[in-house]
Order: sequence, then structure tokens, then C-alpha cells
Amino acid sequence: MSPTPRKKVAILGATGVAGQQFLVSLRAHPWFEVAALGASERSAGKPYQAAITESSGQQRWVCDEPLSDAFASMPVADAAALDPRAFDLVFSAVESDAARVLEQRFAPHVPVVSTSSAFRYEDDVPILVPGVNHEHAPLVKRQQRERGWKGYVVPIPNCTTTGLVVALAPLARRFGLRSVIMTSMQALSGAGRSPGVHSMDILDNVIPYIPKEEDKVQRETAKILGALEGDRILPMELPVSAHCNRVNVRDGHMECVSAGLGRAASPEEVQEAMRSFGRDFTDLALPSSPPELCRVLDDPYRPQPRIDRGTNDGMTTVVGRVRHDPVLPNGIKFVVLSHNTKLGAAKGATLVAEYLVARGLA
Amino acid sequence: MSPTPRKKVAILGATGVAGQQFLVSLRAHPWFEVAALGASERSAGKPYQAAITESSGQQRWVCDEPLSDAFASMPVADAAALDPRAFDLVFSAVESDAARVLEQRFAPHVPVVSTSSAFRYEDDVPILVPGVNHEHAPLVKRQQRERGWKGYVVPIPNCTTTGLVVALAPLARRFGLRSVIMTSMQALSGAGRSPGVHSMDILDNVIPYIPKEEDKVQRETAKILGALEGDRILPMELPVSAHCNRVNVRDGHMECVSAGLGRAASPEEVQEAMRSFGRDFTDLALPSSPPELCRVLDDPYRPQPRIDRGTNDGMTTVVGRVRHDPVLPNGIKFVVLSHNTKLGAAKGATLVAEYLVARGLA
Amino acid sequence: MSPTPRKKVAILGATGVAGQQFLVSLRAHPWFEVAALGASERSAGKPYQAAITESSGQQRWVCDEPLSDAFASMPVADAAALDPRAFDLVFSAVESDAARVLEQRFAPHVPVVSTSSAFRYEDDVPILVPGVNHEHAPLVKRQQRERGWKGYVVPIPNCTTTGLVVALAPLARRFGLRSVIMTSMQALSGAGRSPGVHSMDILDNVIPYIPKEEDKVQRETAKILGALEGDRILPMELPVSAHCNRVNVRDGHMECVSAGLGRAASPEEVQEAMRSFGRDFTDLALPSSPPELCRVLDDPYRPQPRIDRGTNDGMTTVVGRVRHDPVLPNGIKFVVLSHNTKLGAAKGATLVAEYLVARGLA
Amino acid sequence: MSPTPRKKVAILGATGVAGQQFLVSLRAHPWFEVAALGASERSAGKPYQAAITESSGQQRWVCDEPLSDAFASMPVADAAALDPRAFDLVFSAVESDAARVLEQRFAPHVPVVSTSSAFRYEDDVPILVPGVNHEHAPLVKRQQRERGWKGYVVPIPNCTTTGLVVALAPLARRFGLRSVIMTSMQALSGAGRSPGVHSMDILDNVIPYIPKEEDKVQRETAKILGALEGDRILPMELPVSAHCNRVNVRDGHMECVSAGLGRAASPEEVQEAMRSFGRDFTDLALPSSPPELCRVLDDPYRPQPRIDRGTNDGMTTVVGRVRHDPVLPNGIKFVVLSHNTKLGAAKGATLVAEYLVARGLA
Repeated sequence: MSPTPRKKVAILGATGVAGQQFLVSLRAHPWFEVAALGASERSAGKPYQAAITESSGQQRWVCDEPLSDAFASMPVADAAALDPRAFDLVFSAVESDAARVLEQRFAPHVPVVSTSSAFRYEDDVPILVPGVNHEHAPLVKRQQRERGWKGYVVPIPNCTTTGLVVALAPLARRFGLRSVIMTSMQALSGAGRSPGVHSMDILDNVIPYIPKEEDKVQRETAKILGALEGDRILPMELPVSAHCNRVNVRDGHMECVSAGLGRAASPEEVQEAMRSFGRDFTDLALPSSPPELCRVLDDPYRPQPRIDRGTNDGMTTVVGRVRHDPVLPNGIKFVVLSHNTKLGAAKGATLVAEYLVARGLA
Repeated sequence: MSPTPRKKVAILGATGVAGQQFLVSLRAHPWFEVAALGASERSAGKPYQAAITESSGQQRWVCDEPLSDAFASMPVADAAALDPRAFDLVFSAVESDAARVLEQRFAPHVPVVSTSSAFRYEDDVPILVPGVNHEHAPLVKRQQRERGWKGYVVPIPNCTTTGLVVALAPLARRFGLRSVIMTSMQALSGAGRSPGVHSMDILDNVIPYIPKEEDKVQRETAKILGALEGDRILPMELPVSAHCNRVNVRDGHMECVSAGLGRAASPEEVQEAMRSFGRDFTDLALPSSPPELCRVLDDPYRPQPRIDRGTNDGMTTVVGRVRHDPVLPNGIKFVVLSHNTKLGAAKGATLVAEYLVARGLA
Repeated sequence: MSPTPRKKVAILGATGVAGQQFLVSLRAHPWFEVAALGASERSAGKPYQAAITESSGQQRWVCDEPLSDAFASMPVADAAALDPRAFDLVFSAVESDAARVLEQRFAPHVPVVSTSSAFRYEDDVPILVPGVNHEHAPLVKRQQRERGWKGYVVPIPNCTTTGLVVALAPLARRFGLRSVIMTSMQALSGAGRSPGVHSMDILDNVIPYIPKEEDKVQRETAKILGALEGDRILPMELPVSAHCNRVNVRDGHMECVSAGLGRAASPEEVQEAMRSFGRDFTDLALPSSPPELCRVLDDPYRPQPRIDRGTNDGMTTVVGRVRHDPVLPNGIKFVVLSHNTKLGAAKGATLVAEYLVARGLA
Repeated sequence: MSPTPRKKVAILGATGVAGQQFLVSLRAHPWFEVAALGASERSAGKPYQAAITESSGQQRWVCDEPLSDAFASMPVADAAALDPRAFDLVFSAVESDAARVLEQRFAPHVPVVSTSSAFRYEDDVPILVPGVNHEHAPLVKRQQRERGWKGYVVPIPNCTTTGLVVALAPLARRFGLRSVIMTSMQALSGAGRSPGVHSMDILDNVIPYIPKEEDKVQRETAKILGALEGDRILPMELPVSAHCNRVNVRDGHMECVSAGLGRAASPEEVQEAMRSFGRDFTDLALPSSPPELCRVLDDPYRPQPRIDRGTNDGMTTVVGRVRHDPVLPNGIKFVVLSHNTKLGAAKGATLVAEYLVARGLA
């Protein structure tokens, strides 16, 4: 299944937070060879390391993993000036307004896997979460046909949606799903750095509002859990109510979920459904795939962001405290933790790209 | 209404966290004169300041407000050896197991207002939240009659219940209330210091479990929002689902609440009901009473614990982000913030005592 | 001594962090009447509250104390367009580059008390810390004479210098001072908000570098502790070595100081010198003056920023752990805590202005 | 050099924080086979995982690395009842008072490498830091001879001393060392968990006192940097002044150091001395040895605990900001970061043991 030779990829927005994470997830990747690091015109021509170093001498590398020497010395290109036809696949880590313009330049020529929301809500665009709804992938053919593109755009969801749908999908499949109320406690890294969350605003504090986040979660969840019928996705009929909060945690979005199921199920049945979920996908053994999509813990104090976010390098969603919910019909409640800058960002997008390659779509 | 002369009170558990907060709330109190500081036998005989100073020289005073000189030099008594008949009223800040024994010693002789859960769930014991269900207060007469006591026990609720019922009571009264799903993000001070939350456990973290907390919230909410009929409280028929989390915040419990109402109401109607709630109580102008029970904010980023917990010295519950909830029938959702060591602890208990005095019950 | 009628003042940079603190320190001030709130042209014409509210609806008021209603509705003016002659005194909270231009516009006409570093190092400009070197104030006459100004500029020092000189001045006076090695652990608020410290950079972290800070401390300390001789300040011959660090604390700069004295002194003598320091100044009872300049604690665990920074509303410097230092000749070491956004910023500048008025210089 | 067969080792205090770290550092160790996990009588007989699980169901495993399955199921023994003769080497992670008793039981029979301070200050006991003073190791023969022991005790230093001596040793060797003033900003993990630092005490705070810490650093530094002459260590004549603070960081002790050298040296010379230090030791390529003892960074904002503590799995000490100090004669100053629970605890002790084995002393 491994492509030979390796596919040439470009990273758009390579100097930002999400872009840096792509450098980590694509370092020594067996299938993808990073052929270009695209950023703004201002950075163009500089070696990558210089491009992320401020005039004060402070280097703005924000990942836990070190910057690899190969990327450090690689020159940065003006993303807007790159030739789309020079690549087999493009990863976009650009923020939304710029993403719309830039992805529109590349997608006519080459598959674009994106962390931005620019195209997420268009009818011919699937939002892919590997293992959850990879069967939506063929929708990209409609993009190609109707837009006359050789490539396409495939976004991943908002990082708060990601963990939620990994935990809900097994319930939807096994028991049916009628309603969801979710309260998130989201990590600082989800807000990025431009400007992101100021230290004085979050010390000894919680911020109970993240602009647009609740709408995104509500909309994306129904689309991802929907069914591809012919040329369109029928969103699941699923009322979702989200309360999104920012807490003083570096990485890892926690979510307290109450879900109404289609039929009664015991906490044990729910745990079993989650644990066994996605084996068909993990059996593909894609390079960035975790061995398990969803881990369920018994310790009532878990999952915790600091302890559990790194499970299988942040690619496994961790669930705990599965129990009955007394309010919703056939109610079940639990806590879910997902690594927002791994599965929820670059590494999740890398896994999407791997799936598209394996499936012959890229 | 002010009692003359001032009533003599004792504080049981005066050296602990909750006890220290009583010292703050009763300092220079116009109605209550602190006549005894009761603690364990080990502290008996020492001046209060010495009793809270460790052998290392470190003083374990944990309140933001300074320890008053008068209390600093006051000798600590063995709580178990105090004569109950020497006091007009007793405040108990003792932890639960010890509270059961100690409160049982005092209540036959004198009214006991308690922060502990020891008696909360007994049929003849009201759980009082001033402004919310002070009309339950006469239930203490059943205690006196059936137990043959001259005094009684009145507990306040768990500090997580307090803010919730202040926000829910106006909805229950105005629109009816059918169901509640609540996710808390609770402050460190709620866990106390013995041992409370270790710094290494909460840095860069959230802990999604607080033993017994969810049960307490579910049970107490229905009891407090219930009706006193004759000699008993009929709990409200109200399914409550709580998810309780600990976050890295010093004071102030935040709660994200989805509530199903008895009839449809707009967010504006809900805000108005909350804002106008409890005027009959605040008009009593009791010494520890806030001028408003519930403040509703329009800034979507508020309330925040650090900014808003101190509203009216922590005695006003602050609500924000009132909006429709798409899941629950006639659903409304919002954020509520309550100061767990003010309204939710000693100062709330002091206000209960003031009400009992004003009502002629103490 | 109180001026009648109140003096008309303008605040330049009123919408920034330091400017907001001036609004707090000048609210209901007995001597000063805020006649204009100057900010950038962009804010001009808006009511103050609107000028600090973002398009998202989030209000950017950063002080612990609430914004007073009077200021909230006051229109903001373009600072560059204000007529300097309309004011008796001007407070400048503008950042350094802009400060140079703006203060140069006002000082020819009116006294300017500034938190910026723009003029700090000029020969005819004193850096004033009330109680420490207010006798340097007459140097402003040289500014007036040589520059042909009716007004003048008086800056306060960098907020890290402030606490240090309050603790060192009594040692210099009583015992002589030969050398100082200081390591700071500075609060987030010292970095302001543009951009200040990002939350992801300081969580679970210390940042061991603050650009230019160490140079400022070393230079300003010698100047402030110097002597005014005729028309010039002779800086103290004092080698100062500073290590400046940022820690995850909201307010309050802590500094560990080792000082070599001119003669041997016991820790008790040092404590006494600090405790009795500045009575001549505090006896002036200026409106913003604390009752004591320097408080010395015996508890070895103190001072601590969260507990002690608010001493006398942040205007008293708090010292602890006074003991011998085995390295420096006649060495003494201790910890000092100073509130960087109170004494170290607007409220300290207000106290400077009060002194200038009392002294007849403004 | 690798011993065949692997040596049988016991861990004393295996359930505590330091003990858990030994389990991590000895997991799959090529030379050492963990034959016994010793703890208090209370834990004896339980599988290790059960012994660290509280009655609430919460597992008290505090390391970032997971507990290995092999250790999880291994039964815990009563440390006081273990037969010392059953082991080739013993690691002691017991706290000081208990350590004295327990180590005294084992050392007559078997080498004991300890993280406790129980024996550190005895004349015939070296405090070993691998790469810095491993040449002190033969002092253990005096223990054997004078005490009539077959084994011996070798402690590692206090975790605050460790990083300091790694940074100072190259200066002492190359330039001479006359005096040191050090201010630490120490991590929470250094205080352990019994009770360690309470979350409410460190949030938004710094604690400027750690009992006994400054004395330990001052005493141990002189001993470690001293010379073994015949049967005794001549401590270096080195005045050391330490200011020890606790900050809100999980792991990694930062220290700001001003050092007076024996002769003038430029920052570049100092950096070079540090970078080249210890190659003779790292060339031994012991299993737990880092490839470099001391890394020197150029970025003025580094080292930072969160970013740099994990350098070479916490076994490399990281230095930054090397510059002149204007106060001390031939003064140099810098920041040093050392991982207190890796090099400063179990993994450092493991490296000591490896050296003793390689040298034929164990």
C-alpha cells in the first residue's frame, strides 16, 4: 500500500502553530516527502529556523518535539507563489480567511488536506475523521466533477468536534443517537498564538466563551455522523448543545457529554462499543494511525489532560466515567479527552491524507 | 430587627478552612459576638494564632482578608468540652464524620447552623439557601418537637449546589422546571486542605471527578427547590444530571447549565426573571445579604471566576450567556458562577443565621 | 496642603493597561480632577467604555477594581490633539516610543508625570520614588531653565527597580551600600498586553529573560540612590547585578537580594532600619501614601505575591527572610515584594504628583 | 563492561514518588534486574499496582511514563523484612528519618545508592554526581574498613545542588572558583507528595522558603567540588549563598547563578568550558548517561523548564545567558536548569550505580 516513490507534499502556513505541528507529523514520514514550506511573502527566502525567530533572538518553535535539522535549514517559500502542479498533495495549515483564497488556488490542481474551516460547510466537501466517517471520502469526486478540479479540498473538523465524534460514532452505530449535550474544557493551544489567550486572562480563571466554537461543534457533528447517499451527505438528525470553555491547560480538550441513545444501553455495553470501535480502520495500519481509536478507562479520576492526552502520541481518544444520565431518554454520560494539536490538527490531517492515498484518491 | 444585646455564638472547627472563613464573616458582626472558638483537643488552650501556626513557623491562615487581632489572641477551646448552654447560636464548620457527633451534642440545646453534610438528608432538616427557600425554615420546629430538642440543626448545601439553585429558583417559579444537566468547573478551595488538591495534580490539568459531589448536587437541588407542605418537604420532581470537575482556579465554582423549562421562554424573559429574583429577601437588608441575589451579564465572555467571584463580596451569584438550548424541551442554557467560600460556605451560613434570628427562630 | 480647587489633569494612553490603572488611582481623588482621557486617534470620540470594548463584545478592562461609571461614559480624546494648556498636570501612561513624542508636546507647558522610560536617563530628569529620593525633585527646575519649558517631565522607574530601591535606601542611609546582586521573579502584568506574555509560554514554566530589564534596573538603582548636588545627580557608585525572570504570577514582583553593606550589620539592625524608613515622608500623609513604606515580616515563608502584594493597597513594599549573606562583604540577604501595577505604576506616579503639588512644584 | 548475569537489585521505598521514578529508570535496564520492591509493612503482600491505588479507586502513579506491566503485578515486600544478602545492590528512595534506619540495615551487606540525605554529611560518605566527582567513589572503601561493612552507602545530592555543581565544576577546573550566589526557582515535584505543595498555596504565587534547602545546597556544593585526599574529602573553600524559592512549575529546577572565578574569563570561554566538560565520563557510555553533561544555549530566552528539562531524558543540565557579572570579582553569571526528578533523583542514582559497577565497586 505504501506509495513508491514518496509523494511530494507542500505545507501551507508552515511557520504558524498548526504548520509547525505538520513539520513534526511529517518528519521522516514513510510516504510523504516535504518538498516545500509555504508561508507569507514576508518569510519567503529565509531558512525555516530564521523565519520563526524573532528579532529579539527568541525562537518561536512551539511544539514539544524538537525542530528537525532538515527542516530548520530548509528555505521558506511564498505560499502564494508556489506552483500547485509541483506537488502530489498539499497540507494547509492556514487560518480561515487566507485559507479560502490559498486553498482555492491549489485545489484545482492537487488534493488539499486542510485544518481550516474555509470549505467545511460546503455541500460537496466532506469533513473527515479517520475511522469515523472515512466512507465520506468519495464525495471529493463530486468536487472534481462539478468544479472541474483535478484536486479537491478535504478539511478535518474543528478540534473540539474531533474527540466528540470519535466517542459518539460507536454509540450512533450500535444504539442509535438522539441528542447530545456537551460542555468542553478546552486547552490553550486550541486558540493558537495570534493572539490566542493572554496569560493574564487565564491564570486563576476559566473563560466561558469561544467565538463560533459552539456552532461549529453542533454543525460538524451532525455532518460527520451523517450518511453519504449518492452525491450528498445527509446530516444526522441530531440536536447537539455545546457549552465551550477555555481552561488553563496547555493541550487536550476535555468534554463532559450527556447523550440520549436510540435504545437503552448499560454503561458496560457502551464501554464495549467504544473499545471495539474502528478496528476495521486501525487494521489498515496506516503510518499515523493509533492501534486503538478510543480507549476507555475505569479509574474514576480519568481521563486527565496532562496524564492521558499523549495516549498513542495523541491519536487515541480517551473516555472515562461512563454512567447513566438521568435526564436524557436512554441517557448515558461520560468524559472524553482528545489531543487537539495531534488527532485534532496536523497529525489527524496527516492520517486523513494517508487514508486518501491508501484508498487511491490521492 | 437587630438583636440587643448581641447574641453569643461559638464556632466549631474554628481552625480549619471553613472555620477561618467564619472568623472573617463574623468579624465586627453587628448581631453576633464570637464567644468561643472551638477546635480539636490538640489546639485547646492555645491563642488562635498559635493554633494555626505550624512548628516550621508558617502560619496557616488561608483567607484573603487578614486575621483580626481580636481573634488572633483569643484562646481556642476544646469544641467537645464547650457547654452548649453558654451560647445563643452555634456555627459548625466541622467536617462530616466529626460534625455528626459534635452537632448532635449542641443541637439539643442551641440552634446550630452548619456547613457540613451530616444532617442534610434527614427528613426533618431543611437545607437553607437564603432568598431561595428560606420558607423551609419552620421545619426546624419538627426537629424540636420530635427530637425533644431546644435547638436544631440547619445545614447549608454543598457549595456546588448553592449557585445552581440561586439560578434555577427564578426559572422554577416563573416558568416551571423539568430537567437540568449541569457541568461544573470547581475551584480548589472547595476541596479544602486536608489534603485537598495537590499542586502537581492540577497544574496543566483538569480532574473530572469529585467523590460524592454529583450525588449531593442532584439530591440537594430537588430538596431545596421543593415545597414545605405541613411538616415535610416535598422534593421537586426534577431529574438533575451533574458532571463535576476540578479546575485550576482558586475560588469560584463555574457551572454550565442546560435546563428544560415548564413552558417556552425567551433568553430575555429568563434574564429578567433572574434579575428580579429575591427582592423580597434582599429587602430585608440582613447584615450579610447582598443587594441582589443574582446578577446577569451581557458580555459573552463573562462571568469569569477571577473577575466576577467577588461580586458583592461573593454573595451575589453571577449568570451569563443565557441562550436557547436545542436539546431539552423549552431548553435554556447559561453559565453560572458562585463564590464557594463566601455564599457557598461561612458567609452564606452567617446569612442563614441572620435570617433565623430575624424570623424569631433563633 | 490640599489644593483648592482641584487640579485639572489629563491621562495620556488612558485605554492601555497603565492608563486603566490611572483611572483607578484617580477615581474620586481629592486633589486631581480627570479632565481628559487621551488615547490614539482611533479611539477618539468614543465613550471610554466603548473604546475598550472589542468588536466581539469583550470588554478589555483589566483592573481588579471596577471601572467607575463616570469614566465609563466619558468621551476619549485624541491625545495628540489635546491642548496642553488646558491642564494643570498630565499623567502619561504611553509606551516608550510614542511617549517620547507625546511627552515632548506637553512638557513645555505643563508638568508631566510619566510611567514610561522615554526621559528617564537624561541628566536633567529625576526618576522619583516617593519616600526614597523625593529630594531629587528640584532637578525639574533645571529642565525648565535649560529647555525653556514651563512644565517638565518626571518619570517613575521601571517597576522592578521600585521595590528594590525602597528596600535598599534604608540600608544605604544607615550602613552604606557597596554591591547588590538581585534575582527577580516578575509578574505577568509587568509585561502588559501588547502582546505581553502568551499563556502557553508561561504555563508550567519560567522565562529567564526580559529584554532591557536588567540594564534598566542596574542603571536606575544607582541614579535613584544617588545624591542631588547642585544641578545634577551623582549616581551612587554601586555595582548592581540583576537576573530578571518572568514567572506565572499575575501581580507582584518578587526579588531575592544579596547586598554588601558599608559596615557590618545584624539582620535585626537591618530589619529595624527598613521598618523605620521613610517616616518623614509618610508623615506628610499624602492621599495615595501608605502608612508605612516598608513592612518587614518574620514568617520565613513570606512575603508571597498572592498574599502580600496588596499590603496597603499595593503601596507598601514587603520584605522578609532578612539574614546574613556569606559571600558579599558585610553581606545581608532578603526577599522583597513590590506591587508592580500599584506602587510600581499608576498609583506610584499619582503619589509622585501629589508630592510635587505639596512641594509647590506643580 | 556490562555485568553478566544482570545484578539483582531492590528498591526501598518503591511506592513513593522517588521510588516510582526508580521503577521508570530501571525498567528494562540492561544491567539491573529489580528483584524486590520494598515498602512499608502496610503495603506488603499487595501487587504493586494495588499498593499505589487508593480506596477511592484513584491510582497514585505520578510519573509521566506509564507503569510497566511487569512491575504493576509484582508483589510489594516489607522493606524492613527483606534479606539484604539477597541483592547485589540496593536503591533507597526512602525519606530521611526512615532512611537512616533502613539504610543502616542494608549497607553492612550490600552497596546502597540513596536519594536521601541521611548519610550525606558523614566524613566517610561521598556525595556522588556522575561526571562531576565520580573520583570520590573510592571513599566507600573507608566506610567498609572503618565500619566493618561489606557494602556501603552512596547518596546523591539534594536535587537543587545537582544542576549547580554540573555547571560550576567546569568553571572550578578551568578558571578556579571563589564564590557563588544562587537563586533557585524550584519545581513542585521537588517537594514530593507527603504533603508537598498544596495547590492553593502556589497558584498565582511564589513561596520564598524551602526548609533546610539553602543549607543543604551550600554544604553539599563545597563537598562535591572538594578533593579526595587519601581517606578524606577536603571541601572546596567556597562561600555559597543560596536563595531557594518554589514556583508553579511541575518539573525542572531553574537557578540564576552569579559566580566569582579564580581568574578573568570571557562568556565565550565559560561556554566552551561547560560544553566540553565531562567527555571522559560520557565516553564511558554508561546505560543512563547522557551524551553531554551540560548543554549551553544561545537563545537568550532559554533554558525554560517546560521546554528544556527533558533534554536527553532529563540527564543533561542546560545553561543559558552566560554573561559577565559586575559585582563579583571575575564575575560570570548564567541560568542553569536541571531535571530534579531525573538527573536529580532516581535516574541520577541509577547512573551512580552504573558507574560503581563499571568501576568494580559494586
